[in-house]
Amino acid sequence: MRLIRSIDEVRHFSRQLRAHNASLGLVPTMGALHEGHLSLVRKAKNDGGAVVVSIFVNPTQFGPREDLSRYPRNLDRDLDLLAPMDVDAVFVPEAAAIYPPGFDTFVEPGAVAQPLEGASRPGHFRGVSTVVLKLFNIVEPTFAYFGQKDFQQAIVVRRLIEDFNLAVRLVLCPIVREPDGLALSSRNAYLKPIERAVALTLNRSLRRAGEVFCSGEASAQAIAGEMKAVLQAEPRVQVDYSVVVAPNTFAPPSRVTPGCVALVAARVGSTRLLDNLILASPNTSDEERLLLALAV
Amino acid sequence: MRLIRSIDEVRHFSRQLRAHNASLGLVPTMGALHEGHLSLVRKAKNDGGAVVVSIFVNPTQFGPREDLSRYPRNLDRDLDLLAPMDVDAVFVPEAAAIYPPGFDTFVEPGAVAQPLEGASRPGHFRGVSTVVLKLFNIVEPTFAYFGQKDFQQAIVVRRLIEDFNLAVRLVLCPIVREPDGLALSSRNAYLKPIERAVALTLNRSLRRAGEVFCSGEASAQAIAGEMKAVLQAEPRVQVDYSVVVAPNTFAPPSRVTPGCVALVAARVGSTRLLDNLILASPNTSDEERLLLALAV
Repeated sequence: MRLIRSIDEVRHFSRQLRAHNASLGLVPTMGALHEGHLSLVRKAKNDGGAVVVSIFVNPTQFGPREDLSRYPRNLDRDLDLLAPMDVDAVFVPEAAAIYPPGFDTFVEPGAVAQPLEGASRPGHFRGVSTVVLKLFNIVEPTFAYFGQKDFQQAIVVRRLIEDFNLAVRLVLCPIVREPDGLALSSRNAYLKPIERAVALTLNRSLRRAGEVFCSGEASAQAIAGEMKAVLQAEPRVQVDYSVVVAPNTFAPPSRVTPGCVALVAARVGSTRLLDNLILASPNTSDEERLLLALAV
Repeated sequence: MRLIRSIDEVRHFSRQLRAHNASLGLVPTMGALHEGHLSLVRKAKNDGGAVVVSIFVNPTQFGPREDLSRYPRNLDRDLDLLAPMDVDAVFVPEAAAIYPPGFDTFVEPGAVAQPLEGASRPGHFRGVSTVVLKLFNIVEPTFAYFGQKDFQQAIVVRRLIEDFNLAVRLVLCPIVREPDGLALSSRNAYLKPIERAVALTLNRSLRRAGEVFCSGEASAQAIAGEMKAVLQAEPRVQVDYSVVVAPNTFAPPSRVTPGCVALVAARVGSTRLLDNLILASPNTSDEERLLLALAV
């Protein structure tokens, strides 16, 4: 596993990898790796090509009052986690290499980037889209692996790939959860023990949405109302949004069908958490749910 | 010479070309080809690789009150002009293929895209940058050829390439002029005979700027003032801007040095025309002037 800091070097090395492998997978991360990230790496390895993992805490996707400076960073631990996974390279650029003096061109994502996370975090998807495009152009992967956890981000990236005619295929992987249901997130490290328990309310509200949908409810408003009831029963959860939307537009559908998505964002203490559930009949696997959502 | 209409086909064909050639040059045009375009094709051929010319009148770079609908289109004539030039492919996509329903992601260029053309044509460089990025991603050229005639566009594209880590090298070619000095432009076709004569004033103002600079004047304001005097002597020229600027920022330099650029935009009748001159000592060739400007 080669640790690469320079853009020129990773570009060169990626080209070698592509020349000697059927495909090249990129797993873009901000580090503070957990099982969610590792599931992406495992999927990439499983797809049979070479694998590059990038670790870059991207400043342009953080708002001025967000947690850029305290975002967890532990490169040694990240490298230890990746070491047994037979990754070909870990690309860890400096911010000054990605955004050198004079840097001044951004991706301007469209309507899918406006609601929900886009509304709560102005400029977030502009920064995400810009760094993702840059990483794609630097590494030139055939496949790029993203997690369902940041569902709206994945759809913004899908739009980016399609609209800019990028020669990369997006691969989405299901949310990885703790045994009690908490969606893995690097930001879970911020949670105090009591907050950790309270944070389960997000997943509980999604499970409720799933139950209500499976009982035959097809009104987005009604399902979201049930989610809200679960969330409001826990006063230590400050809900940002809890919605049921079409997975391609993020607008509430006139009728909720399999593949629609229940999404929740909420603050527990000072920690902002996300979770989502793709609605489908009870025995649908997580992978099938993703296919349903992406087919819309 | 293969005429290709489909994105998938040109992507496939370009990959074959790249596999069998040392390099691949892209000459992106809006058609209505003239000797300026052909000089780019000749330069690309001369560089020894395969050559793809794209012809696409890009709607997103035209403002709502601009000349998109009447912009000159004559594909048969363009193909006749290219036929003897041993180009490998001409890519002529439909607008609906480049901007299919749902298209919604744009490039947001920065400060270099704000003044001059950016101020006169809001959204112009956003559209240019977006389509250029898309063409780069579709054709994946090693070299891309642009004309000095649209100098600010070239600098915006240079910034795009650098900021998005694109694996393409920008090649700029000097302005091609009629024997009397008029810069070639597809829009010259709009000019009535009397306007054609009046249009020479633009180049005359630039030649005056060059003389004044070579006589030792180093004040951008003073040189621009001399340009203005030439332009204002012709009442049938409506000047949009006439400036002397640093070639990287488009701001007036505190002291004009070789490589700074005199730019003029003006309307003659209903036709908007551009011209520019890279300032340098008298015997500097056009190619050397470009190197001077790009070195800044």
